[in-house]
Amino acid sequence: MREHFHDQLDAVTDELVQMTRLVGSAINRATQALLDADLQLAESVIEGDEAVDLLAAEIDDQCFDIAARQAPVATDLRVIMSGIRISMSVERMGDLAKHVAKQTRLRYPKSSIPPELRGTFAQMGGLAEAICSKTGMVILTKDVSHVAAVESYDDQMDRLHRELFGIVMAPDWPHGVEEAIDVTLLSRYYERFADHAVTVTKRMVHIVTGKSYAEVSVDPLTAIMETGG
Amino acid sequence: MREHFHDQLDAVTDELVQMTRLVGSAINRATQALLDADLQLAESVIEGDEAVDLLAAEIDDQCFDIAARQAPVATDLRVIMSGIRISMSVERMGDLAKHVAKQTRLRYPKSSIPPELRGTFAQMGGLAEAICSKTGMVILTKDVSHVAAVESYDDQMDRLHRELFGIVMAPDWPHGVEEAIDVTLLSRYYERFADHAVTVTKRMVHIVTGKSYAEVSVDPLTAIMETGG
Repeated sequence: MREHFHDQLDAVTDELVQMTRLVGSAINRATQALLDADLQLAESVIEGDEAVDLLAAEIDDQCFDIAARQAPVATDLRVIMSGIRISMSVERMGDLAKHVAKQTRLRYPKSSIPPELRGTFAQMGGLAEAICSKTGMVILTKDVSHVAAVESYDDQMDRLHRELFGIVMAPDWPHGVEEAIDVTLLSRYYERFADHAVTVTKRMVHIVTGKSYAEVSVDPLTAIMETGG
Repeated sequence: MREHFHDQLDAVTDELVQMTRLVGSAINRATQALLDADLQLAESVIEGDEAVDLLAAEIDDQCFDIAARQAPVATDLRVIMSGIRISMSVERMGDLAKHVAKQTRLRYPKSSIPPELRGTFAQMGGLAEAICSKTGMVILTKDVSHVAAVESYDDQMDRLHRELFGIVMAPDWPHGVEEAIDVTLLSRYYERFADHAVTVTKRMVHIVTGKSYAEVSVDPLTAIMETGG
């Protein structure tokens, strides 16, 4: 019984890792679609998000099932309950990748971003994929020493986000309002994507160390403009 | 034992309702601060968000405690696990109210919104408070017949959000890029606020009817521009 129980927990962990892989691929392809104004690729990201949502629903059902059929001890229960919240966050990351793809589709065949900002968005996409893969590693290995890397990626993302914000707000912004808003929203999607990854890794710290979420929840963000979601 | 258990569940429900009240008051005051460019009121909203976060952490601990010390039956377990996700959503609503207040502080003593859009933001604030109070009622009474009202408020919010988006994107927008971005982000905060309320009421439907979240999760949004969080 006990062994079967831990098998079930391992299955949940595997599925959470699988979610981070799907979402990492999604943000990677969404970024590529954005940079190339590639409608077909954007569509594939939008359609692919359903698989992430289904996986999240499956994880929920499994967590529910485990908790209902077993009487888990404290640590295991913490894993189960955190599993629910982690899947919720990773699901949101998938939504954000989809939003990037939808923005690409909305402006197609035009590009959503001016050519001079391609480099910045390529960097943001790279950071988003890196943070996603690191997050998957934290979930899989429970090695919380990777958390510092996740936070460092997040800091870099925040820096790029602020940089873009400054560029579109500057008096010499050579494009229009529409372009400025597109850049702002896109940039925000990447920034929120990284934030959710930080939330997930903090929950993993909670699982591993037992420290409450609030204790590991000191917000590293000192951005001028904070953005909600 | 059993009775004590249900007392504990009731306490969680009461605290979730209390969270919606705090958040309803926060979005109401944040809107007032936005409309009046009232720095002091904005600061009080920003500081007050900590109480919401603390309440969310308390609810988490309690849910964990109940699940750990009892072996809840299926329905009760569903309430406990949904309680965690509901508190997460309401906490995000509090964050969004705080974002509105921070935007007010950022532009002070200037107003963040042009005078001709005050009416629209006043409406959005009113809708946000109404949807919050209705959501609290659904949590308290478990009467899912209120869910239609929540969705109708959300539809109205989406309409206003699209309307504002059209206004700032129009060729005759008389203000600058900064003003357009401020309006877009603020509008987005209200729109996301309403979305989270819809998510919460769907979870309540799940608790009451046992229908899976996915089954009640048909997205009513057909907005041109979807926004992520």
